[in-house]
Amino acid sequence: MTTISVLGLGAMGSALAGALIKAGHTVTVWNRTQSRVQPLMTLGARGAATPGEAVAASELVVVCLLDYASVEAVLAGAEKALSGRVVANLTTGTPKQARSLATWVEAQEATYVDGGIMAVPPMIGTPQSFIFYSGSEPAFERHKAAFELFGDAFFVGPDAGLAPLNDIALLGILDGLLSGYLHAAALIRASGGSAEAFTPLAVRWAGSMASLFPDLARQIDRGDYRAEGGSNLAMQAAAMDQMVEAARDEGVDPIFIEPMRTLIHRRVTDGFGTDDSAGVIELLFLNGRGKRNTAA
Amino acid sequence: MTTISVLGLGAMGSALAGALIKAGHTVTVWNRTQSRVQPLMTLGARGAATPGEAVAASELVVVCLLDYASVEAVLAGAEKALSGRVVANLTTGTPKQARSLATWVEAQEATYVDGGIMAVPPMIGTPQSFIFYSGSEPAFERHKAAFELFGDAFFVGPDAGLAPLNDIALLGILDGLLSGYLHAAALIRASGGSAEAFTPLAVRWAGSMASLFPDLARQIDRGDYRAEGGSNLAMQAAAMDQMVEAARDEGVDPIFIEPMRTLIHRRVTDGFGTDDSAGVIELLFLNGRGKRNTAA
Repeated sequence: MTTISVLGLGAMGSALAGALIKAGHTVTVWNRTQSRVQPLMTLGARGAATPGEAVAASELVVVCLLDYASVEAVLAGAEKALSGRVVANLTTGTPKQARSLATWVEAQEATYVDGGIMAVPPMIGTPQSFIFYSGSEPAFERHKAAFELFGDAFFVGPDAGLAPLNDIALLGILDGLLSGYLHAAALIRASGGSAEAFTPLAVRWAGSMASLFPDLARQIDRGDYRAEGGSNLAMQAAAMDQMVEAARDEGVDPIFIEPMRTLIHRRVTDGFGTDDSAGVIELLFLNGRGKRNTAA
Repeated sequence: MTTISVLGLGAMGSALAGALIKAGHTVTVWNRTQSRVQPLMTLGARGAATPGEAVAASELVVVCLLDYASVEAVLAGAEKALSGRVVANLTTGTPKQARSLATWVEAQEATYVDGGIMAVPPMIGTPQSFIFYSGSEPAFERHKAAFELFGDAFFVGPDAGLAPLNDIALLGILDGLLSGYLHAAALIRASGGSAEAFTPLAVRWAGSMASLFPDLARQIDRGDYRAEGGSNLAMQAAAMDQMVEAARDEGVDPIFIEPMRTLIHRRVTDGFGTDDSAGVIELLFLNGRGKRNTAA
C-alpha cells in the first residue's frame, strides 16, 4: 500500500480520504479547519499541520477543495514540496481552470491529473460513482488502483481540461433532462393531474429516448444531418410551435422549450428544413471549432 | 370482429388501418387523395367515396389527418352520419383543440375519444408504441381491444384534452433530453473529441438520472421543496454560472442551459436558496393553476 495525501476535507474530500483508509492505505490529511480532521484521524489517518507537510508525506496528493482559488492558494503554500509529486485535483472547476493549474503544477516539476467526479459524497466507493480523469496518462495508470477505490475511473485524454469538460457535458444532459421533466410536470399539474401518477411513464420514456443518442452522435461526427425519412426539421418547427402554443394555453411558461424552437426555426431559415434535428448542433459553435456543415 | 372506419391515410393513418386489417377487422377507409387508398384496398380494406359514407359504415370512426382544421372540415362534411358514432381522433393537436372538437362532436350526438400517439408510423402495432386516450371512458373501454392493436393503450381521464396534454408533456421531456445532449455533444466536439466515443456513457447517465424523477414528483405534488441535505438551489446557481462560463470558454453557445440558470437564480432571489431544484416548477405557472408554494 502506498502513502497518499488528501488536501481538503469537505464532504467530498472526507469521502475520498475515507475510501482510501478503508482499503488499507496510509493516508495523510490536511484541512484548513481542524475540526474536519479529527473524524478521519479516528479512522486511522495521520494529520498534517500544513499543506507542505501533507504534500511532503506522499507521492500522490489528492486535492479536493471548494474552488480553484482555494487550490491555487493551498498549493502555492506547499510549493517547495511539490517537485516529483503527482497532484490529482478533483476540485470542481472549468476546463480552462484545469488547464491553467496543470501548467502551473508542471512548472513546479510535479505531474498533474485532473478528476471530474460524477457522484455525490455518499456515492463515493459505490458502483454508482464514476470519475473522469485527464492530464498525465502514466500518472493515472500508476495510481489507477487507488482512483478506482472512489468509483469507476475513465481516462479521457492528456488535455487536463477534458475531465471537467466531460463532467460538465454530462451535467448539461442532466440539466436538459430536468428542464424537460419540470416542463412536463408543470403541464400535468396545471391541468389538475398528479406528477407522481405521470412519472413512471416519464422515466420509461426518458430511458427509451436516450437510445436515440447513438444515431445523433453518428450524424454529428460525420457532419451529415440528412434525414433518412420520418420527421425533418421543417415538420419539427411546426410541432415546436404547437408545443409552445399548447403550454401557454395550459398556463405554463414555455421557457424550457423555447431554445430548441428558436434554433430549429433558424436552421430551417438557413436552408436545412429537410435535415434531421441533430444539425441544430451547428448553431451552438461560437467559432470555427466543432463546425462541420453550415453551407446549405 | 367489428367494422371500423379510418379517415385519413397519411403515413400514420395507413399504419393504423393496416394494423386493424391485419387483425381481421373489416375496415372502411377514406382519404382525400385516392392514391393513398389503393394500397389499403389491396390489403383488404373497403374504399368509401366520401367521409359521410365512411362514417356511416362503422360505429367506431378513427380519424388521423394532418391537423385539426382538416378534422373539422372532414367531419363537418359527414355531419349527418355522426349521430351514435364513436369518433376516435388521433390527429396531433393541442389540448385546447381536442376540448373544442369534443364539444362539437358531442353536439352531433356522437361520442368523442382523443388519442395522443407516442410512436412513429413504423412502430404502430409493435411493443415500442403506446397511445394516450382521453374523453369518453365507456367508449374507450368498449373499443379497447381495437386500440391495443396500435400499441399499449393508456386512458388518462375524461377531459378530452388530457391525451394531447400527456403527449406534449412527454415530448417536452424528449425536447429537454435532446437539448441537453446537443449541448454536451457540442462541448465534446469543440474540444476535438468524438461524439460517438462520449455517447455510451451519456446514454447510461441519462437513464440513471431519470431515476431522480419520482423524488421530484413527490416534492411537486406536495408543494414542499425543502432540500434534505446535499445540493441546494444556492449551490446550483453557482454551478450553473460555472457551466455557462465553461461553455463560452470552449466556444459553445449556452442557449440550452440558460433557462435553468435564469430560473434557479430567480428562485434564489425569491428566498428559496436552501430549497431543492424541483421548486423551480413554481416559476412555470403563468396563473394560479398548479401553483403550490410561492411565499418564502
